[in-house]
Amino acid sequence: MVRIAVDMDEVIADFTAKLLSIYNKKYGTSYTEKDLVGKNLRDVHPEHAEYIRKVIQQSDYFADLPLMKGAREALEKLSEKHEIFITTAAMDFPTSFNAKYAWLRENFPFISDRNYVFCGDKSIISADYLIDDHLRHLKKFKGQGILFTAYHNINDSYEMRMDSWEEIYNYFESNY
Amino acid sequence: MVRIAVDMDEVIADFTAKLLSIYNKKYGTSYTEKDLVGKNLRDVHPEHAEYIRKVIQQSDYFADLPLMKGAREALEKLSEKHEIFITTAAMDFPTSFNAKYAWLRENFPFISDRNYVFCGDKSIISADYLIDDHLRHLKKFKGQGILFTAYHNINDSYEMRMDSWEEIYNYFESNY
Repeated sequence: MVRIAVDMDEVIADFTAKLLSIYNKKYGTSYTEKDLVGKNLRDVHPEHAEYIRKVIQQSDYFADLPLMKGAREALEKLSEKHEIFITTAAMDFPTSFNAKYAWLRENFPFISDRNYVFCGDKSIISADYLIDDHLRHLKKFKGQGILFTAYHNINDSYEMRMDSWEEIYNYFESNY
Repeated sequence: MVRIAVDMDEVIADFTAKLLSIYNKKYGTSYTEKDLVGKNLRDVHPEHAEYIRKVIQQSDYFADLPLMKGAREALEKLSEKHEIFITTAAMDFPTSFNAKYAWLRENFPFISDRNYVFCGDKSIISADYLIDDHLRHLKKFKGQGILFTAYHNINDSYEMRMDSWEEIYNYFESNY
């Protein structure tokens, strides 16, 4: 048994899909995630950074994010053998606590809320693995990091990168 | 420099003082913390456990807790030399996130919100020290625990116990 810490946004919750859908509706654009290689929407439209920030800071933004493909199924199986913690940088969005909590209860009922961690700096996390889409979090983590591929991190290099929940599940199945 | 993780309730925030004041007003009693040696109020009045739970679960219960004596001054000085994280078992009271966050911003403005950790199981905390009033949290922690004396834990034995923020401050000053 190992302890696996799992980030929320862009790893189990599709943060960007919702943002693009709201943005496209507002500005009549048709961005997809593929337009965000190596960057965020606010890098593409710095003149709308304030609008984007407001959208994300709405207290219910995180309430109905779509699931990332395969995340629930993989975590449900992994949680039979391993200890799963959800470790999210919630302090970036202090308005998001309640929505994030409710979203996790609803979508991952097999993970106890005692295993949720709302934090800022992920160097505080004590676990064997951390699955995250941000290099800055993985760099501070003392265990083995796994960079979860997102368009924004596609140009980053990191020793262990995985592209899907299927790949993650297979990794833990073959190694433990 | 060491990393010190600090619990909130009964360590920096006087959770029990407020609860007793509300309870005494409601039931015409005059309990003080000294009446809670080795136990909690709900152990003394199990017939009011439901009422006590409701009081604590009000979303603003944590908004105006008094500070524990000396906590702010000691942490302000310790934070000049050491890394301070606030690690609170907020998942016990999922209604409390916003009030806890606001209380910390207001009372400990010198601690970045990136150093707040709202968690359940404190075995997830990676730090050199954890100051906590609950043995169950200290037992799971991998670093050096410090049991912060409260009436409810007065009969517990633990290798390192401290009774006040002055004692804690002096300990770190003499050792680092």
